[in-house]
Amino acid sequence: MVNTLYLPELREMLAADDSQELREFCSAIHPAGTADFMDGLTPEESWRVLQHADPVVRGEIFHYFDHDKQLAILSSQDRQEIAELVANLAADDRVDLLNELDPAIVQELLALTPSEVRRDILRLSAYPEGTAGAVMTTDIVKLSEALTVRQGLAEVSRQAEDVETIYYLYIVDESDRLRGLVSARQLVSAMGKPDTTLGELMETELVTVDADATQEEAAQKVARYDLLAIPVVDEQHRLLGIITYDDVIDVVREEATRDAQQSAAVAPLDSGYLTTGLLELGWKRGVWLALLFFGGLLTAAALRTYDERLVMWPWLIFFIPLVISSGGNSGNQSATLVITALTTGDIKMADWLRVVRREFVVGLMLGGLLGCCGLAVFWLMGPETRTLQTAAVLPLTLVLVVLCGALTGSILPLIFQRLGLDPALMSNPFVAGIVDILGLLIYMNVALLLLSQVR
Amino acid sequence: MVNTLYLPELREMLAADDSQELREFCSAIHPAGTADFMDGLTPEESWRVLQHADPVVRGEIFHYFDHDKQLAILSSQDRQEIAELVANLAADDRVDLLNELDPAIVQELLALTPSEVRRDILRLSAYPEGTAGAVMTTDIVKLSEALTVRQGLAEVSRQAEDVETIYYLYIVDESDRLRGLVSARQLVSAMGKPDTTLGELMETELVTVDADATQEEAAQKVARYDLLAIPVVDEQHRLLGIITYDDVIDVVREEATRDAQQSAAVAPLDSGYLTTGLLELGWKRGVWLALLFFGGLLTAAALRTYDERLVMWPWLIFFIPLVISSGGNSGNQSATLVITALTTGDIKMADWLRVVRREFVVGLMLGGLLGCCGLAVFWLMGPETRTLQTAAVLPLTLVLVVLCGALTGSILPLIFQRLGLDPALMSNPFVAGIVDILGLLIYMNVALLLLSQVR
Repeated sequence: MVNTLYLPELREMLAADDSQELREFCSAIHPAGTADFMDGLTPEESWRVLQHADPVVRGEIFHYFDHDKQLAILSSQDRQEIAELVANLAADDRVDLLNELDPAIVQELLALTPSEVRRDILRLSAYPEGTAGAVMTTDIVKLSEALTVRQGLAEVSRQAEDVETIYYLYIVDESDRLRGLVSARQLVSAMGKPDTTLGELMETELVTVDADATQEEAAQKVARYDLLAIPVVDEQHRLLGIITYDDVIDVVREEATRDAQQSAAVAPLDSGYLTTGLLELGWKRGVWLALLFFGGLLTAAALRTYDERLVMWPWLIFFIPLVISSGGNSGNQSATLVITALTTGDIKMADWLRVVRREFVVGLMLGGLLGCCGLAVFWLMGPETRTLQTAAVLPLTLVLVVLCGALTGSILPLIFQRLGLDPALMSNPFVAGIVDILGLLIYMNVALLLLSQVR
Repeated sequence: MVNTLYLPELREMLAADDSQELREFCSAIHPAGTADFMDGLTPEESWRVLQHADPVVRGEIFHYFDHDKQLAILSSQDRQEIAELVANLAADDRVDLLNELDPAIVQELLALTPSEVRRDILRLSAYPEGTAGAVMTTDIVKLSEALTVRQGLAEVSRQAEDVETIYYLYIVDESDRLRGLVSARQLVSAMGKPDTTLGELMETELVTVDADATQEEAAQKVARYDLLAIPVVDEQHRLLGIITYDDVIDVVREEATRDAQQSAAVAPLDSGYLTTGLLELGWKRGVWLALLFFGGLLTAAALRTYDERLVMWPWLIFFIPLVISSGGNSGNQSATLVITALTTGDIKMADWLRVVRREFVVGLMLGGLLGCCGLAVFWLMGPETRTLQTAAVLPLTLVLVVLCGALTGSILPLIFQRLGLDPALMSNPFVAGIVDILGLLIYMNVALLLLSQVR
């Protein structure tokens, strides 16, 4: 909100080409703040402002632009200038961006970047999206264990500007195999003994992640061990790069969004809600909606089978939505609890029997609760002529349906996990869809059983 | 899995009281790994193993125990030893743990802890749970801006063992007001000019968070600005503590779990799925289930109103579950997309009109799609005698119901956000509940309108 207040002034500076003020604007505050202030500018205008920043700061501010503005600038502005910008971006960010650009433009840009940057980009983009290799950065301090603390400090001080983090120094042998790690904390603590070698200081029990492991595995390790960064290695234990805490925060948030979308039967979006095209949005929802619709046909088929009975006991119809939504809600609760517990590592596959037993007990409790509600409702809204049998239909159905929901909702995600599939796929509304049909069958059969005795 | 293989050996060491081996076990690998290896030990046994670790490592290993083991040890073991352990835990962790202990035990422990630790605990526990103040830590390096780089390095080197992070040094004035920040990176880069003062070096444009802001606000700022830590200040801009990146990762994961549970109509659990009591689990689910059940009564009331018509056109009954689940699914998709976009900051309240317009278009597209499916289904499963009017009921209903779901699902979370309530509350199954009723009313009225002409 506040940010837009400055837009006219910014535009004025641009119109007057006021180099001095624009330079000041670019360097006065944190690059993320500067990027926020430029929110309302077009990509074209933003790029003109950035001309007045020095190259490193230009890259930093650009990093905080929103995704679409970044892509618009990369694909429309002077190739030579863009190639310089790309060389100044963090190694992991630039690969992500280039992956989304028109390949023809990427070729032009690559031809203009220094060979080391180009090699780095090609190496990183070889890893499939979602792997540790694809999110790692290669800007790291690698040192030999023969160096002393004094030499190490000097080396860090020299490289400080170019690397992603100076807080962990990685010790490698001559063929780049990871030998150990010295934290900046250890280095600074050891300043009193400047001739100690890094080999003496380093920790050798390191938590690492393979380049082809999933990004979630890397994120879980960083979270579990409270790391600032985790080294990424190949099968020969060669150090390829690191994943830093800030990328882990992004991975965790991305995952949460993806899981939420998946659990609502939306194929995960590649970009933001507002920037996803309407056709793509329609497609990613329509596929699942249609699938669920055809699954739902089974409910229509089931009801058709019990047609005559429903016409004979029309009050059974009133409670159809109530019965199936109760089962669906209970199943949805169980599925979500089990899925989140699997995600946080709270439960493991070995716990499956305990989970199912717990859901059985809780399902009975909840079913009992809704059964009592059901009895009251029958008294209020049921038919005029009440018998023990007619009164028992709704309560008994609700107990069974809620129990069935709790069991289905807990078992399906466990089965998916066991099969190596994402358990989040088995969240509502798929569970709800399955429980809908089971619930209807339970309802109709309970009614058949109890009411056939009445006639 | 692997971890349990070592349990017999650990137990053997304990039985033999093999001090040497146990000490080695405690110090050989990362404390998180050590804690993993003790997974299968009882709290009592784990505590006996920890006796052989030195106090700082003991605190570190304890930090990685699961929550219940931590509480069991704190409340059952020798008070004096526990008080020493507590003094060695991170300032933010120990407050969280003590908050869950029996207050009588906490009093005993506080009496045994050094006065500075006690004061710190009391200060931190004054902040309500979920605020920035409650998650911050007070173990930080505070320096005066008059110090030189050389003095700063010496001071950092001296304090390195005691503080949570040495990577940011906070510069405060004599009354503790935050003046600026020097990163370890800057300090190390400036080693060549050891007489520069920290005041010259420090950055003064700092991103801070108020102690009574929510922990999510702090997490969002850390994520946005890629910070290692964010300073927490009071209304006089005095530096109270910091929140570090590892706590932010925890907050983001906690939030994701909480949101998922809430969106499945489960009141968020305080602890893990397996450790939550069955009664608590039943209660946290039962309340919502009963609430949704009574909301669902409206569907029964609606159906009762249209009783006669349903008996006359029994094929209308078959499609009741299909119609309401289509509306619910579409509403659920919209609600989840809008809620996650609000959480990630992808859309803001100012975008509401754009969101609603988009949902209108997508809703029409999806409704059209399901409408076509509905026409096919009517042909397959509908009544024998088909007229234009009867054939139009299901398709027209589906278009309207899906559109209604998309609009309801997107507008309700926006309204909740506007009212200052958590939009995640308006996720499925509440949206589904509301759309169920609207869907039924649409279905019955469309049928009434079209079929009254047939008779």
